[in-house]
Amino acid sequence: MKIYVVGLGPGSVEQMTGQALAAMEESDVLAGYDVYIDLVREKFSHKRLLSTPMRREEERCRLAIEEALKGNTVSMICSGDAGVYGMAGLMYQVAQEYPPVEIEVISGVTAACSGAALLGAPLIHDFAVISLSDLLTPLEKIFRRVEAAAAADFVLCIYNPSSKKRGDYLRQACDIVLAHRGPKTVAGIVRNIGRKEESAQVTTLGQLRDTQVDMFTTVFIGNSQTKVIGGKMVTPRGYKNEQQ
Amino acid sequence: MKIYVVGLGPGSVEQMTGQALAAMEESDVLAGYDVYIDLVREKFSHKRLLSTPMRREEERCRLAIEEALKGNTVSMICSGDAGVYGMAGLMYQVAQEYPPVEIEVISGVTAACSGAALLGAPLIHDFAVISLSDLLTPLEKIFRRVEAAAAADFVLCIYNPSSKKRGDYLRQACDIVLAHRGPKTVAGIVRNIGRKEESAQVTTLGQLRDTQVDMFTTVFIGNSQTKVIGGKMVTPRGYKNEQQ
Repeated sequence: MKIYVVGLGPGSVEQMTGQALAAMEESDVLAGYDVYIDLVREKFSHKRLLSTPMRREEERCRLAIEEALKGNTVSMICSGDAGVYGMAGLMYQVAQEYPPVEIEVISGVTAACSGAALLGAPLIHDFAVISLSDLLTPLEKIFRRVEAAAAADFVLCIYNPSSKKRGDYLRQACDIVLAHRGPKTVAGIVRNIGRKEESAQVTTLGQLRDTQVDMFTTVFIGNSQTKVIGGKMVTPRGYKNEQQ
Repeated sequence: MKIYVVGLGPGSVEQMTGQALAAMEESDVLAGYDVYIDLVREKFSHKRLLSTPMRREEERCRLAIEEALKGNTVSMICSGDAGVYGMAGLMYQVAQEYPPVEIEVISGVTAACSGAALLGAPLIHDFAVISLSDLLTPLEKIFRRVEAAAAADFVLCIYNPSSKKRGDYLRQACDIVLAHRGPKTVAGIVRNIGRKEESAQVTTLGQLRDTQVDMFTTVFIGNSQTKVIGGKMVTPRGYKNEQQ
């Protein structure tokens, strides 16, 4: 009777940790959003798999908790890290309404890290992780954060940069950053991390502004020191003039 | 003739990804800081292990590159993620001085994520990752970032919060945040992640200010919405009043 909230990493089994695989192996039930269940369907075909559609996160938590309260061990699976825009928080919140059930979060490689590895090394110095989804957060608050991060020379890593309803949010975010950094600032776009169609593109902030991205994309904007080295996006360790 | 820059995650073999283990298995040589080499010494005792002391990062890169240029496959290992304050960036920079050598970054679970999992779910919403080490970055620039992140209601995740020379930097950082958030703001302290002495403590910003931490500690400061639920540090998914 336990719930693991498991971060799968970008998607491929090789990018999962041993701890994540062990938690799923120990579980009677794996629960999660359809697309994530599909990632483990083959490897864990001997488990009971409960998938729910997108945006039904609260329902998904209740399902997991009810299974646990029946005496089952349950893995609620998330892509990336379970604790970065993942299900870990909602699970603790929803579980308050039920009799006590043990919850353990198993971390995984989040898109900031797996995406950075594909681009080179953009996150070697301080960075801010911001989601452009305004489903639960006012847009002005999101852009206020983009502004703060840009002004303080953080590297920016942007999750959920676009969707049908918010086609121009990334452009607006870039315009905010462009008030603080030049259009030649190094930027990076990573798509479909860990999938067959995986791609990484090093570009500039000016070009990023005019690029249409989709919801399977993670975006990086370098700080004032970020360079292109051999086609890779590399942020130095600091601001001193010595070899950084 | 290839260099993998490998993130080991917090330390235990179970928290490494299959990809990290495969890269090390494929390598002729594992290179890294003493303490990290010790983490894999048992599992990879059949490999040639090259360890160098702390702060000799550039020398460590040269060692790895020279081994690769001799025709060896080399894994340069780092704790956490190789791309978050890790060796990936310096490796690209130093490699510029040598004939071309292939470099691939293998990401791992960084302390922000593994630490968050121990505390509960503090990073469910936008967060800023800041190192308080002023070895290569001017202190005023670091504190400017703390200020920006605090004002924009980011969750803060602080790496390298202390060392002998910078005993009171965390206190100063907390004072900056306290100008924007109350002393009862939820905070978290994680020590020795992935090691035997691992510990996680949920506290308040006011108490964090007066806590002496060491260099094996990662610190979290919640945003205005972060709550304590069943002893865990949990940040909601947003600012709307519905179940977040």
